Amino acid sequence: MTKVTAQMSVSLDGFYAGPRAPDDDMDGWLAWEAPGFFRVTRWVIDAMSWRERQGFAGGERSVSSEIIAETFAAAGAYVMGRRMFDGGEAPWGDDPPFRAPVFVVTSRPREVLEREGGTSFTFVLDGLERAIEQAKEAAGAKDVAVAGGGSLLRAALAAGLVDQLELHIVPVLLGDGLRLFDASLDLGPAEGIELVQDRVVETAGVTHVRYTVAGRAALELDARGNEAAAG
Amino acid sequence: MTKVTAQMSVSLDGFYAGPRAPDDDMDGWLAWEAPGFFRVTRWVIDAMSWRERQGFAGGERSVSSEIIAETFAAAGAYVMGRRMFDGGEAPWGDDPPFRAPVFVVTSRPREVLEREGGTSFTFVLDGLERAIEQAKEAAGAKDVAVAGGGSLLRAALAAGLVDQLELHIVPVLLGDGLRLFDASLDLGPAEGIELVQDRVVETAGVTHVRYTVAGRAALELDARGNEAAAG
Repeated sequence: MTKVTAQMSVSLDGFYAGPRAPDDDMDGWLAWEAPGFFRVTRWVIDAMSWRERQGFAGGERSVSSEIIAETFAAAGAYVMGRRMFDGGEAPWGDDPPFRAPVFVVTSRPREVLEREGGTSFTFVLDGLERAIEQAKEAAGAKDVAVAGGGSLLRAALAAGLVDQLELHIVPVLLGDGLRLFDASLDLGPAEGIELVQDRVVETAGVTHVRYTVAGRAALELDARGNEAAAG
Repeated sequence: MTKVTAQMSVSLDGFYAGPRAPDDDMDGWLAWEAPGFFRVTRWVIDAMSWRERQGFAGGERSVSSEIIAETFAAAGAYVMGRRMFDGGEAPWGDDPPFRAPVFVVTSRPREVLEREGGTSFTFVLDGLERAIEQAKEAAGAKDVAVAGGGSLLRAALAAGLVDQLELHIVPVLLGDGLRLFDASLDLGPAEGIELVQDRVVETAGVTHVRYTVAGRAALELDARGNEAAAG
């Protein structure tokens, strides 16, 4: 059964990048978003399995590296936001690290891009849910991974389309920046999205916490222990 | 050496309570803040060691219960915000669960309150840093615990006054509410508060993550792995 999975590296205070720059150019990005983004993804860059995918030498053979390898291996197809694709198209080059079909949610029509190593980019104009459907058809027995960015992941969670969520929690507080979770989840004060803890792996420099998404549920008021005192 | 510690129960998206109510009365609190607050602290209410402190019967003898007992045992004195004290004064009654001196940061002068079981409340008018100093003098060889609420904890972290931070991460997304961490930490886009992972304990329904606070540090831009590809 194909699951829809999502995973993201975040600071302990829930940011996956620094604040959006006032000017949307490379210098602005490097000064604003990049320091936080680089900090929370440093553990990925250091891991051998990620470096191998990029054609880079070196890296640490670690539990975190195994988790990255497992994440790549589980994904039979990806769903991606337009902004993430735009930022990645050039640096990913001819042999992007996905090695599977990628479905990009966008409003701009474009021909399918075929890349080396099994990666293709298909541009889906009729929304996230349809992109996930197409990705499920392409994934075979494997999972569909929501590749990001943050707003696409949040939209998928809000729409109840994510089955498994993994956060890689990096031991730093950023204070401000791009938050993975915000009020766009559109939950009332007495409503939450319940998760079930699936796995926690503590490694040097990052803690991996994985959940099964149970879905929206009412938050109950309890008697705060007084039911026992009264007994 | 007396450490200053802080711990808080939060949702995976970093809230310790639901949104502040439009009307600051009990009905407003129950409808807005309480559902989220009750959800993220349910594990505490269920734990035997907490119930014993409150004089309640029952509860689970669990790893989480041991962590609560350890937290109480480590604290020789507490520092508390004014709003938390105001909310707790009546329900805590004659025998509050602290059983140690509590220093309340406030702007309203008031005589020291002596309670049963070793708890006292001293009202400190000259700020958080001075309250922590007084608490250190009172704590002896034990730790000073920042009891809360969230804004006091954040102010203590921002001022570099916290040595150890523990979050009890509850598997739920609340979307909106009172955030433990926000931009009041006053960090620039290239600055973070670095933490060192100390302990991760996964238990049923809550994951306890404890950090040593290393302090403010610059966030570096790295070569994103390209240094190896060039070599």
